[in-house]
Formats: sequence, structure tokens, C-alpha cells
Amino acid sequence: METPEQLQEYLRTTIPLTEAMGLRVLACSDGEVRLAAPLLGNHNDKMTAFAGSLYSLAALAGWSLLQRLVTVQKLEMQVAIFTGEVVYTRPVRGEFSAHVRIGPEIAETLLSELRTKRRGRVALEIMVEDGEGVAMRLAARYALFPATPA
Amino acid sequence: METPEQLQEYLRTTIPLTEAMGLRVLACSDGEVRLAAPLLGNHNDKMTAFAGSLYSLAALAGWSLLQRLVTVQKLEMQVAIFTGEVVYTRPVRGEFSAHVRIGPEIAETLLSELRTKRRGRVALEIMVEDGEGVAMRLAARYALFPATPA
Repeated sequence: METPEQLQEYLRTTIPLTEAMGLRVLACSDGEVRLAAPLLGNHNDKMTAFAGSLYSLAALAGWSLLQRLVTVQKLEMQVAIFTGEVVYTRPVRGEFSAHVRIGPEIAETLLSELRTKRRGRVALEIMVEDGEGVAMRLAARYALFPATPA
Repeated sequence: METPEQLQEYLRTTIPLTEAMGLRVLACSDGEVRLAAPLLGNHNDKMTAFAGSLYSLAALAGWSLLQRLVTVQKLEMQVAIFTGEVVYTRPVRGEFSAHVRIGPEIAETLLSELRTKRRGRVALEIMVEDGEGVAMRLAARYALFPATPA
């Protein structure tokens, strides 16, 4: 799942809702992930984006950043969101994207914690935007733990 | 959207992701709504329920309770979630349901506010459970406003 193509393929084949959402990976690196989805398939009864689709794309952006980071570092870890604070600021009327970054120092601290303690936690701020700017913010915390019992 | 059948039909035909999720309406009344979804179609790469599916079902339960309430009262109002605080307590390994209640006094206060001010806000606590108990809590706030400019 190192390249955008590999990450998109991984998400689409293992999480069926991402296929229904038409999720695309626009960019991924050690420092950031950007995912996108069309309005079609993700709209609500008002023909604006469904709140659950916006949240799902944001939660997946943070998850993808961390899961990719540990996979690239050959750490056999699972990643799971455990809390989220979400604020919707306005309706979304077109394609939308979710963007998340992690600073190199925070990433290095997390990786070194995972190498020594085999578990860790990290907070990420994820922004969902459409063509007009930010429409939703998610402050999420993720837990990382061994993929198989240590 | 007064009966469970009508509400399910409304959600499935206007919000495509609910169809992908296999959403079912187990119960709905002026005081409570209970929605359910199967693990199949809502799982993640760990074969537990996708965090976005759990959140979506919870957000829809609160939305359904309020949208049904105003529709039954012949108030032409839209309902939109604007903040949410979500806590995941453990993985979900089977079918799950989202349950929300509103007390008659809070409902009456909201309806009277909507009749006089044409807008209102309300906080709801939604629980997501599987066969083993509560797996996620969502504390959400919803805004209600005229369906067409007043």
C-alpha cells in the first residue's frame, strides 16, 4: 500500500463501503494522505454530501496515513480510530476530499514508541474540503497495536 | 416516513450509502428510533465493522428521529448534524444497531421552538450495540431549519 494505486486497491478490496463511495487516493506519502469521493453515491436527501460519507472519508484518511506508515516501516501493526470530534461547517455540493498530515517529528516519536512498546496512540486533524474550501473537520485519535498477539 | 417501512424506504431511496450498508429500520416512533445493519458490506480489513459504518448508522438514527418528528407534525423542516463526539469502545464482529431516544419534554420544547422561531437545535446521545452490548457512543448536535427559505 505504498503508492496511491496500491493504497486505493487495498481500501477498495478490503472495505466494501469504500467501493460504494467511489473512493480514490489522490496522494499518499510518509507525511500526508489525500482521499477523494464524488457527490454521486455519497449524497443525502438534500442532494448535498451525506454526513456519514464525509466522516468516513476523513476517518479513512487518518487510518491510511498511519497504516501505510507502519507497513512501509515493516511493523506488523493494526490501526483503529477510537475517538473523534467532528464539526460540519457547511453543506458540500460537489466532489470532496479529505486531507491529513503528520509532522516528521511526531511520526518518528510514534514509530520509536511502537518499536519499543509495541503499541502507541496518536492524534490527527483531518480536513474535508470541496471546491469552496473546508466543510468539515475531524480531530481523531488512533490506537496502534500488534496485528497478531505479541 | 411515519412507519418503519416508510422510513426505511425513504432512507434507502434518497441516501444511496444506506442501500450499500443494507440499513434496516427496526423501530421508529415519536420517542425513539432503532436502525440496524449487517456486518457483511460494512466490514473493514480486520473483518470487524468499519468505523465509518458505525458512525453513519448512529448519525442516521438521530437524523431519522428528528426528521420523522417534524414530518409527522407537518413542519416543513430540514435536519442536519453539525457536531459529533464519537467514542469507540471495542470492535464489532456481527450485526449492529443504533438506538436513540428523545424525552417527551425535550421533543415538545423543540417543536414549540420550531413553530415560533422556525429554527432550533437539539443534542442527542446515540448508542451503537452488537450482540455483546455497547460498542460506540455518539453525542451529536442537530440543527433544524426551514426546508425552503422562510
